[in-house]
Amino acid sequence: MKVHVQTRPPGIDFPITPTHWHEAAARAGEPAHDVSFGTTAADWHEARGTVEMLVTHGDLLRALLPLDAPALATVFVANAGVDGLAPFDWLRPGLTLLNNSGAHGPKAGEFIAMAVLMLATHMPALATAQRQRRWHPLFGGTLAGRRVTIVGTGDLGAAGARTLRALGVAVTGMRSRAAPHPDFSDVVGVADLDAVLASTEVLVLACPLTPATTGLLDRRRLGLLPAGAGVINIGRGRLLDGEALCDALDAGHLSGAVLDVTDPEPLPPDHRMWHTPNLTLTPHISCDDPTSYMARSLDILFANLRALRAGAAAPNSVDVARGY
Amino acid sequence: MKVHVQTRPPGIDFPITPTHWHEAAARAGEPAHDVSFGTTAADWHEARGTVEMLVTHGDLLRALLPLDAPALATVFVANAGVDGLAPFDWLRPGLTLLNNSGAHGPKAGEFIAMAVLMLATHMPALATAQRQRRWHPLFGGTLAGRRVTIVGTGDLGAAGARTLRALGVAVTGMRSRAAPHPDFSDVVGVADLDAVLASTEVLVLACPLTPATTGLLDRRRLGLLPAGAGVINIGRGRLLDGEALCDALDAGHLSGAVLDVTDPEPLPPDHRMWHTPNLTLTPHISCDDPTSYMARSLDILFANLRALRAGAAAPNSVDVARGY
Repeated sequence: MKVHVQTRPPGIDFPITPTHWHEAAARAGEPAHDVSFGTTAADWHEARGTVEMLVTHGDLLRALLPLDAPALATVFVANAGVDGLAPFDWLRPGLTLLNNSGAHGPKAGEFIAMAVLMLATHMPALATAQRQRRWHPLFGGTLAGRRVTIVGTGDLGAAGARTLRALGVAVTGMRSRAAPHPDFSDVVGVADLDAVLASTEVLVLACPLTPATTGLLDRRRLGLLPAGAGVINIGRGRLLDGEALCDALDAGHLSGAVLDVTDPEPLPPDHRMWHTPNLTLTPHISCDDPTSYMARSLDILFANLRALRAGAAAPNSVDVARGY
Repeated sequence: MKVHVQTRPPGIDFPITPTHWHEAAARAGEPAHDVSFGTTAADWHEARGTVEMLVTHGDLLRALLPLDAPALATVFVANAGVDGLAPFDWLRPGLTLLNNSGAHGPKAGEFIAMAVLMLATHMPALATAQRQRRWHPLFGGTLAGRRVTIVGTGDLGAAGARTLRALGVAVTGMRSRAAPHPDFSDVVGVADLDAVLASTEVLVLACPLTPATTGLLDRRRLGLLPAGAGVINIGRGRLLDGEALCDALDAGHLSGAVLDVTDPEPLPPDHRMWHTPNLTLTPHISCDDPTSYMARSLDILFANLRALRAGAAAPNSVDVARGY
């Protein structure tokens, strides 16, 4: 197969290198392919006439659209969220879009557990006090018996549930349909979200951004959380109403928040989120382990190629109707 | 037995209330005692002529010294660290000092795990970037395979080791003598500390402050930690050289620190620790779960009284020669 890898120049985070490719291919026992690597528009231009599979990143793929590549059958992006590639009218029939869902779980699970521990320990409020050079003891209890709800039962949310379970927490999952999931104590559908919020001490957003989830945690739903609740967002900034969240922190209705994603990104220096009290902000780093990210991504790609060769469905094929 | 409880007035953190006392006595099946409760010097003055057991807090006990109470046989402080009560020349022969070691484990274990996760995720550095309103992505790996060393294998350190083990970390313990401990992957004595530091990615101080541990993590030992290491202190501020630690953070030799204890406490507003980069400061809150603290403390007291009545050694009797 003619494969082209369009990646970032050296020195930028998370490139796909020939070493990554060849080591992953060896691990998978993958047959030999004719692989080229490029970083520039000229590199893509040279490859596109014959390329059958394009391996790239979501933001770089956006710059290549529409894909003028007649032999192209498969596109793999080393990202899980593909909201930046919507609308999917560029995805002509017969062209399969694969993502790397499954690559982020171990780091995301630890980040979710860390953020829940931080909220239980009032760390966002203590960071605000530190900024003000104020010795302000706030004591927090342990995790046992806490009620955590995770929106999204995919790679990220399930890993968070497993890690929290190891720490003694019972975790409710929310997904589009209320089907059981082995990593969650119980699972509810989106229709039950409002009812679950009233008894949620920490709400974690770990779902894809789609038309159905945009603005899911709006001002009304923030008001349904009990006083003193905390919010964590590792999905996408537009899953929640950022102004309403800051208002709820300013008013003291929420005790804290840990936000790894914002709208927009990067957050401009004059945005209120930088200095809203009891808000801990991280720059979209919650789910990406630099030591294993690309190896895990390519392992997932090769597992999908094996499935396709066997005539099976590719587990990471993006369903454009769902948006993930 | 004539018992006097000298505690804090209502509204201050962690009082010992009659409800705490009677509920714990009922849980323990403790025989009835003649118990008085007080908060003022006059209250103590009225009780001291006949009191046989004093139940109080370390800082309040200090104010009552020397204890002019002829029938007094037992003093219980609802603290684990008794460094504030040294030197122990006030502890006359026949007077038993009990602490509440064992009360702090569950919260301390979670705080240690949280702080290790925070260092692995560069959270202190990201908090510094947030203060500067700077979007500065720093990516961190997962905990698997990390080398964490915990100084102190008592209630705090052992709980930290158990929680980290649940997250897949192998933990080396350091104690005065290198006796094995079931919660640690391996245990070294203080003589081996220098050798262990070179391969320690996160060093946790969770030991008592004694003449032997004062200044344990000095400038020389900080220099033995590998570049990029992190430091956590939940013991006492004087276990480490604070100036040397800030210098190591300023120089970038350490990647981050989480300090829950300082010297002095509260930290004055002009102290450099408030704004040293990549230093997360919390105000001595790491080990105290307000929902269970006093119940656990009194359960420990009553277990000790049961042991003493049975003619056994009290497990929480402070060894003044060791200082804990």
